[in-house]
Amino acid sequence: MVTTVLIANRGEIALRVLRTCRELGLRTVAVYSADDRGSMVTRLADRAVQIGPGPAGRSYLNIPTIIEAARLAGADAIHPGYGFLSENADFAEVCESEGITFVGPPASVMEKLGDKAVARSLMVAAGLPLLPGSHTAIDHADEAEVFADRIGYPVIIKAAAGGGGRGMRIVEQPEEFLRAYTETRAGAQAVFGDGRVYVERYLPSARHVEIQVLCDQYGNGVYLGARDCSVQRRHQKLIEETPAPCLPADLIEEMGRAALRGVATAGYVGAGTVEFLVDPAGAYYFMEVNCRLQVEHPVTEMVTGIDLVAEQFRIAAGEKLDLTQDAVVPRGVAIECRVNAEDPVRGFAPAPGTLTECHFPGGPFVRVDSHAHPGYRIPTRYDSLLAKVVAWAPDRDGAVRRMRSALSELRIEGPGVATTVPFLLRVLDDSRFRTATHDTSLVAALTSTG
Amino acid sequence: MVTTVLIANRGEIALRVLRTCRELGLRTVAVYSADDRGSMVTRLADRAVQIGPGPAGRSYLNIPTIIEAARLAGADAIHPGYGFLSENADFAEVCESEGITFVGPPASVMEKLGDKAVARSLMVAAGLPLLPGSHTAIDHADEAEVFADRIGYPVIIKAAAGGGGRGMRIVEQPEEFLRAYTETRAGAQAVFGDGRVYVERYLPSARHVEIQVLCDQYGNGVYLGARDCSVQRRHQKLIEETPAPCLPADLIEEMGRAALRGVATAGYVGAGTVEFLVDPAGAYYFMEVNCRLQVEHPVTEMVTGIDLVAEQFRIAAGEKLDLTQDAVVPRGVAIECRVNAEDPVRGFAPAPGTLTECHFPGGPFVRVDSHAHPGYRIPTRYDSLLAKVVAWAPDRDGAVRRMRSALSELRIEGPGVATTVPFLLRVLDDSRFRTATHDTSLVAALTSTG
Repeated sequence: MVTTVLIANRGEIALRVLRTCRELGLRTVAVYSADDRGSMVTRLADRAVQIGPGPAGRSYLNIPTIIEAARLAGADAIHPGYGFLSENADFAEVCESEGITFVGPPASVMEKLGDKAVARSLMVAAGLPLLPGSHTAIDHADEAEVFADRIGYPVIIKAAAGGGGRGMRIVEQPEEFLRAYTETRAGAQAVFGDGRVYVERYLPSARHVEIQVLCDQYGNGVYLGARDCSVQRRHQKLIEETPAPCLPADLIEEMGRAALRGVATAGYVGAGTVEFLVDPAGAYYFMEVNCRLQVEHPVTEMVTGIDLVAEQFRIAAGEKLDLTQDAVVPRGVAIECRVNAEDPVRGFAPAPGTLTECHFPGGPFVRVDSHAHPGYRIPTRYDSLLAKVVAWAPDRDGAVRRMRSALSELRIEGPGVATTVPFLLRVLDDSRFRTATHDTSLVAALTSTG
Repeated sequence: MVTTVLIANRGEIALRVLRTCRELGLRTVAVYSADDRGSMVTRLADRAVQIGPGPAGRSYLNIPTIIEAARLAGADAIHPGYGFLSENADFAEVCESEGITFVGPPASVMEKLGDKAVARSLMVAAGLPLLPGSHTAIDHADEAEVFADRIGYPVIIKAAAGGGGRGMRIVEQPEEFLRAYTETRAGAQAVFGDGRVYVERYLPSARHVEIQVLCDQYGNGVYLGARDCSVQRRHQKLIEETPAPCLPADLIEEMGRAALRGVATAGYVGAGTVEFLVDPAGAYYFMEVNCRLQVEHPVTEMVTGIDLVAEQFRIAAGEKLDLTQDAVVPRGVAIECRVNAEDPVRGFAPAPGTLTECHFPGGPFVRVDSHAHPGYRIPTRYDSLLAKVVAWAPDRDGAVRRMRSALSELRIEGPGVATTVPFLLRVLDDSRFRTATHDTSLVAALTSTG
């Protein structure tokens, strides 16, 4: 049984995990870098341990130090949040060998699914549709080019070790292919230490739709509806919602069952997300499995009433899933907006600083997850997420209106500080978003037109 | 059609109403006393009008000034919140005659239901059970004493014009009766300008259970489940929850139907609450109708997904109720704790001051309604409510755990400032509350034992 949890993360997600730990009666150990000294989670945790200087490589990504902190503080479990070490199979492996419960899938599963080529062949075996593509890495430029010609342009070149928008490049014309291939390989080698890439058809008009799944150690699994995350800037999600609008219920059900088959093939255990692209005709294509809690998990929580972090802990503790598919009854519509410390009028440049005012919306059907507070100094080293605002309503129009109102109420002020709120409001007011006829190109269209 | 709403209130409820106005696209006019200058709602409203000095009688209770402010600001509707003018039939009448939509029941209905004796005879006509009692005012001491002897002790003497715990006194023994009668009459005359009192049986072990109703102008009505508000200190509610625990579903349904019959008899229009006492055997007795939004309405919103303030506006605008009883499907359990600026270790004495820190819980399934912020100076003249914290979970144990965690996270600090949070935590930990076997005597038991 788990009694003490080390939260190997920072920011809003550390606070999110802490809240569920407290509810479950688990003791909490926060870890922090020098840049995060005095942060909200360190103040609320039962214990806080500094794990190094600001750079993540020397703190939040430093496996031996985090394991040592866990041992020191008597933690018998580690929740990795998202980002940082959350999908690092080595870290999960070290936890396992040290007798610490890693709150996530087994290392072996993460290893398989973290390799795009392996993941894709597993999904093919499970009968999931894939975009026309190489499915395995292509190591020679000429072979790759022939392949691209065969499947037709535009194509996308993806690093096997990439994900979340990193390590990928779209190629519109055959004459651009060789250079893009060479650069993507070199970049992947430099960033991930793994230069393998594969090539697939690129869908210019597609929606990003993902299925949340929960699987226990005994082969039981449920899916918790579909999230649409098509509002992306350079593959980074800005707005997410559930259910996926304009997709028929039977399509979502089919994708849900496909997602469960896919993760079952990989022996998945824990909370996970299967990402798909959906084209305008309603055809869907597997993209990747995220072996962690997603940033956007709160929308699923709001419509299902299920605490996903609590489910993660129950599964990690070896409990049987006490949910059946029939018991998952979504209600209404939830939308999440990510409020980043970035200035939309300066090309989304980071806009950090110290907050002089910090007022969040509250009241009916609005959820805020944030570690920010008056006096908070936004560190420059980490991702720029300051707050997630989630609004729920019985229908999508109501949820959009409520989100608009909530964002209008929010105040995050400080010298030099800017946030994405004005841009989020522009998206919410856009007629394509309002009618849910947008696709993943919406943000590019809005930013290119000023 | 309503376009501009004057919010004739302050504190958290003014903010609550403002939020729904914004979502509905209504312009907002805040009014404030000199003590509330710069308050959250004045900063967020489209317009803010000062209506007088601190004392409520010269500001929030000053009908001509508020009407004048509405006219000045072009408001075509007034939402009264709770307290202050919310159940003042004269105010509703003035609004009506000035062509301003009063967001509440018609003046004539408030008048009838505001008089306990009239309300009781209406409810008798509708077949609602009443506690053995005089049902109409008894104006002579000897007659009242004979009556008390007949129905049996303990009895309660209630001012016809009282309510919400004001103007009532429990009498345990016959020899105390005459003095209590005389004092209650004199007090009622002084406070309400109406010395009429009636006498009824007092239930020493009872639960306070109330039914939320919504009625439109066309005779349609629904009830939205039952709230248990048995955690009271001197008739002031501290913790409320829905559904009412340990009451069988068919009893709640019966009370819901009775409540609807009762308000229909009075020609009720709007959101209202019918309060009952329920004895240990499950017998229920009508107490009073509250012709306004209740402080504790958020718990109902959380389980039903219905925005009660939005419904109030729709009904006030003459729309037909678009809810049917079958469409009201409560989910899970919601609990509200009132965080007051009172010091539980000093007999709940007011503990105002200026806030240096103000951190509210957030995250999954927690709602906070509060006007407080760092730098907020708590006025001494008004009620001491600083924040309402609401926690939801699929079951009651989960909701209690979540509330415990949320309250533990909350920080409201400042020189001289104390809150009821430590006492609320004591109640949440009490085994009677945990098992939902408590009644309205719980707080007295906890405070008398230190």
